[in-house]
Amino acid sequence: MTLNMNLGANSYDIILEHGAIQKASEYLNLNRKVFVITDDGVPAEYADIVCAQCKHPVKAVVAQGEDSKGFPTFEKLCRMMLENGFTRTDAVVAVGGGVVGDLAGFTAASFMRGIDFYNIPTTLLSEVDSSIGGKTAINLGGVKNIIGAFHQPKCVLIDPDVLKTLPKRQIANGLAESIKMATTFDAELFELIENKDIAENLDIIIERSLRIKKYVVEHDEKEKGLRKVLNFGHTIGHGIESYEGLHGLYHGECVALGMLPMCEGEIRERLLRVLEKAELPTKLDFDADRVFEAITHDKKLDGETLNVIYVPEIGKFEMKKTPLSDFRTVLEEVFCK
Amino acid sequence: MTLNMNLGANSYDIILEHGAIQKASEYLNLNRKVFVITDDGVPAEYADIVCAQCKHPVKAVVAQGEDSKGFPTFEKLCRMMLENGFTRTDAVVAVGGGVVGDLAGFTAASFMRGIDFYNIPTTLLSEVDSSIGGKTAINLGGVKNIIGAFHQPKCVLIDPDVLKTLPKRQIANGLAESIKMATTFDAELFELIENKDIAENLDIIIERSLRIKKYVVEHDEKEKGLRKVLNFGHTIGHGIESYEGLHGLYHGECVALGMLPMCEGEIRERLLRVLEKAELPTKLDFDADRVFEAITHDKKLDGETLNVIYVPEIGKFEMKKTPLSDFRTVLEEVFCK
Repeated sequence: MTLNMNLGANSYDIILEHGAIQKASEYLNLNRKVFVITDDGVPAEYADIVCAQCKHPVKAVVAQGEDSKGFPTFEKLCRMMLENGFTRTDAVVAVGGGVVGDLAGFTAASFMRGIDFYNIPTTLLSEVDSSIGGKTAINLGGVKNIIGAFHQPKCVLIDPDVLKTLPKRQIANGLAESIKMATTFDAELFELIENKDIAENLDIIIERSLRIKKYVVEHDEKEKGLRKVLNFGHTIGHGIESYEGLHGLYHGECVALGMLPMCEGEIRERLLRVLEKAELPTKLDFDADRVFEAITHDKKLDGETLNVIYVPEIGKFEMKKTPLSDFRTVLEEVFCK
Repeated sequence: MTLNMNLGANSYDIILEHGAIQKASEYLNLNRKVFVITDDGVPAEYADIVCAQCKHPVKAVVAQGEDSKGFPTFEKLCRMMLENGFTRTDAVVAVGGGVVGDLAGFTAASFMRGIDFYNIPTTLLSEVDSSIGGKTAINLGGVKNIIGAFHQPKCVLIDPDVLKTLPKRQIANGLAESIKMATTFDAELFELIENKDIAENLDIIIERSLRIKKYVVEHDEKEKGLRKVLNFGHTIGHGIESYEGLHGLYHGECVALGMLPMCEGEIRERLLRVLEKAELPTKLDFDADRVFEAITHDKKLDGETLNVIYVPEIGKFEMKKTPLSDFRTVLEEVFCK
């Protein structure tokens, strides 16, 4: 299936197809110098399958994990491109999860002020979310995604077959973002996850998540308004992540925890059951003051209030300016001890 | 005088006015956190005058010269913004020449994927050329401007009064770019520089150069076609610069040398006299092989040919794919020994 992301001059196709990675060269122009970036947590065969289809492949394998998403690796990748004589007409391909995609994307965005970038996500999280939309970035000083660029890929190749090698917990990690999109935009998708077998319906979940993401990005490429909806669960999520990240929680797990306080009553109950079904955490024993402190350093902070997404009804959202003190109370109420 | 750069959502004003720097806050929104970046070669008063008009100024003074335009300073500036709590709605102001503008612009482009950027150029070179057009960049591995972004400023404030403190040789450095634009686009401007007193007509030269630059950028924001005309003289110029730069030639001086081989006969003669009048170099005793080698590493290289701008008539240009070997011959012919 092909979805076209309609962004004027920045438009591109999102290909969702079993086995797509085996025939990448049918969809991507690999008949040139291609910088294939992957990490050592991704099965090596995926990048190798892509390299085998490139005219002049140059492969970089970075260390798995968030630490690679910083200045040292970014500079190293830029140097590799320079040393290998890359020019304006060459391309970068990411083969990996969100870290590889963000890092490779920012490298492609910055080299010669922007060259072609293709993304081949290999985790559910990046397949349904981070691989599309053109947000690229690295971290600095413990702050995630603080340095980066909007640089749309030329094509995104999503091959659900690669998920077969993905650990179960990483599947749950990606599902958190799909649940986020269902909760704010798509009551039917929410009900599907709520009532049907998740593993059997993964293709449908991916497709519907992509359609939501496509809709949002098309209406707000540079995150001036609507796109902020995708931050549902992320304000608290990022707070937990920057405080708790080193203790081993994944991004999606933090988002799962971050969504719960942003809805009430029966909606919160339903969301709770769906998160449990997806094997995502719903309780955390943590220090609310420290998470709150991390949140107030969050990049979406604007004076004494926070712009936060609430869900008044499954499939709907509202953006509310919330005083910091109210926010602190909500945090305590839901899952702090 | 105000020129509007018409680039759709990226449009902005270029203000050309004596004393503009004194009333920067009338033109720029300085009622927020503002990161003012300058270098230690720029009279400190200029940045201080701007800081005095900002609600929350944070000043960074980098070392003068091309060495500041690299990863270490770029990362340092990003860290300063982070440590000073800059957010999406704050701004960066460059007060300086091309190095400061490129570096500050790339910092603004990358911080939170792009925040507002204002440019207050303080050299003739940056006033007529580099401050407008949205090209930002740093150098890497001895290659100029290889890592960067297209990030249009929100406003450019050009105050010709600041040129009073500029050394004569720096005036000539800027004139080289005006002569470049006149030679390719504006026979009248060329004749003005050829026949009138340059110092007395500097305001007109700046204005007409800005109009040419505006026209070119409006028609080709991302340098896909027309904008390459601005590279007239730059292919050889950059070659000389990367080889000769450490020996003390300025960018405009290298461009002056680089233009001569790109025209012939009477046109070359007229250009030669204009360059001499502007006190720009027209002869260089250098190793043609090394300059040629530097050129073949140039980022505009595309296989066995170079796309180069020639001037068949003053005020006109043509782009020609030139075999590398022809190019080597031209180099020798004009000013090598």
